[in-house]
Amino acid sequence: MELKDILKPIESELNQVETRLHDAARAEFGPLALVIDSIIDSGGKRIRPAVTLLAGRLFPQPDENLLKMAVSVELLHMATLIHDDLLDNATKRRGSATINSKWDSKSTVLAGDYVWAKAAKIAAEVGNPQVLGIFADTIMVIVEGEIKQDYTDAKSRPQRDEYYTRIYAKTASLFEGAMRSAGVLGNASEKHMHALGLYGRNLGTAFQIIDDVLDFVGTQADVGKPVGSDLRQGVVTLPAIMYYENHPNHPVMNSIAVKNGHNSHDLDAMIQEISTSPELAAARAEAQDIVRVAQRALETLPKGKYRQALHDLADYVIARKK
Amino acid sequence: MELKDILKPIESELNQVETRLHDAARAEFGPLALVIDSIIDSGGKRIRPAVTLLAGRLFPQPDENLLKMAVSVELLHMATLIHDDLLDNATKRRGSATINSKWDSKSTVLAGDYVWAKAAKIAAEVGNPQVLGIFADTIMVIVEGEIKQDYTDAKSRPQRDEYYTRIYAKTASLFEGAMRSAGVLGNASEKHMHALGLYGRNLGTAFQIIDDVLDFVGTQADVGKPVGSDLRQGVVTLPAIMYYENHPNHPVMNSIAVKNGHNSHDLDAMIQEISTSPELAAARAEAQDIVRVAQRALETLPKGKYRQALHDLADYVIARKK
Repeated sequence: MELKDILKPIESELNQVETRLHDAARAEFGPLALVIDSIIDSGGKRIRPAVTLLAGRLFPQPDENLLKMAVSVELLHMATLIHDDLLDNATKRRGSATINSKWDSKSTVLAGDYVWAKAAKIAAEVGNPQVLGIFADTIMVIVEGEIKQDYTDAKSRPQRDEYYTRIYAKTASLFEGAMRSAGVLGNASEKHMHALGLYGRNLGTAFQIIDDVLDFVGTQADVGKPVGSDLRQGVVTLPAIMYYENHPNHPVMNSIAVKNGHNSHDLDAMIQEISTSPELAAARAEAQDIVRVAQRALETLPKGKYRQALHDLADYVIARKK
Repeated sequence: MELKDILKPIESELNQVETRLHDAARAEFGPLALVIDSIIDSGGKRIRPAVTLLAGRLFPQPDENLLKMAVSVELLHMATLIHDDLLDNATKRRGSATINSKWDSKSTVLAGDYVWAKAAKIAAEVGNPQVLGIFADTIMVIVEGEIKQDYTDAKSRPQRDEYYTRIYAKTASLFEGAMRSAGVLGNASEKHMHALGLYGRNLGTAFQIIDDVLDFVGTQADVGKPVGSDLRQGVVTLPAIMYYENHPNHPVMNSIAVKNGHNSHDLDAMIQEISTSPELAAARAEAQDIVRVAQRALETLPKGKYRQALHDLADYVIARKK
């Protein structure tokens, strides 16, 4: 199923989110508005607003606060991207030039701060302290995760559990927070809140694993950045970790893992090797299992087209080619 | 009057704020905790928590939320300092090495993000949507102000109104927000809220003007950074603007103002000239007038030792030597 078809039940809400995202940028200071507009226009799948809206639609509630939450969640995501790209010295995201490749680092830090503040402001407008608590907790988890990654002992062997901790902070926590926020706004029961969080956390985890898998299989044109870009930056993701588990004495993997230096020819060969390995398929299968956990969590939630869309979205997360 | 004596009525609350600031740092990831501890330990006068506590004490209310607000306000202030020092490439603050002079810029950005998130989290714990709205608005004003400063036409002549807009964003907005937040928590009337905001805004403005005056008169040992450091970085503050108004054709001032380049000997002489000029005294007198507006705003607020302390604090802001 195409993403567009899956999200049909919330098509008009997603259009409103799009308009509001642009409004949030347009209303403000000129040069900054251009930059923020460029990051909004660079696309992205709006998966985070989509799950927020779908989760909210499971419970009868007025539109306004739900739309605000969906916008706030996407802005928060964008803010983390802006600082991330700067910190990683990334030059491309989804095929477009990153802000830091066009602006100096000062303006980029401020642009990230600004989008973040805007996300906080819109979340505050929702006027629900519990939602704001979730929002603030999510920011803490994301930032702490980045800092821990920065401080991970460079010489330690990459571990699966450490990977899962990292991608929870980086990706899954925001999906979890988005789902739970929508539930709070809809006065969801304790049981439903638990299911929403479980779905969000597992969907986000699977989403990130597939991102990491696609980093090995996509072409530059598909994913908008060089193939194997994570490993090139020394970031060892699930496919590489699984490969390394099965080839614990592989000399190139050893040198990459402990950052002992390696030449670019070895690195190219390593990326090529992983991209055709059974471990890549195994990583994808692991994401598939995690998605099933997310889908099972949906079973306790109110039945209907919105729940079905969340179910189909989970399938899409696995099946997507980019 | 010494600051310590002025703040006697809230001595125990300020001690609790100090403990909580350290707790906020200590509870978390090791290396980051060290960095945050260092910025907490580097001192600062805790003027922002002080005005928050004093404003809150004007209205009967439980301690807990007020203490949280005071901590959150100081953390927000610290977060802006961390990013500011990085963006300005400052190496010293209050005589101590800045975070960015010890850490790489990546860690510094993340440290700022972290402290910011922590401030938001503690503000969210207060559980009052109106307070969170004020918090988010204040962040927006601060960040927008920094961005605008970055984009100000470098060739335009420095103007007094532009200076006041800048220091409102940079300093006064947080004082205003802190006072108003304390009022919201104490269920202050509309009239009282207005007075609190007016006091905060004007106190913060005067505070920044005096900071800018002291930058010309202090010795490096006093202010913890080189004398005339603002002008050295091309930041033209009130004393220099007033001097320039009265000497519109001064060649060195002209070249500094429009960033046309100047040699360091000229710059030293210029700083020396301003530091002994009548304009420096005039800038101080202007701050004094602004403080009187703040003090008059207090007259409508509940009488007593807390109001008196706010009054005396305003005098201190003018009289302080560093």
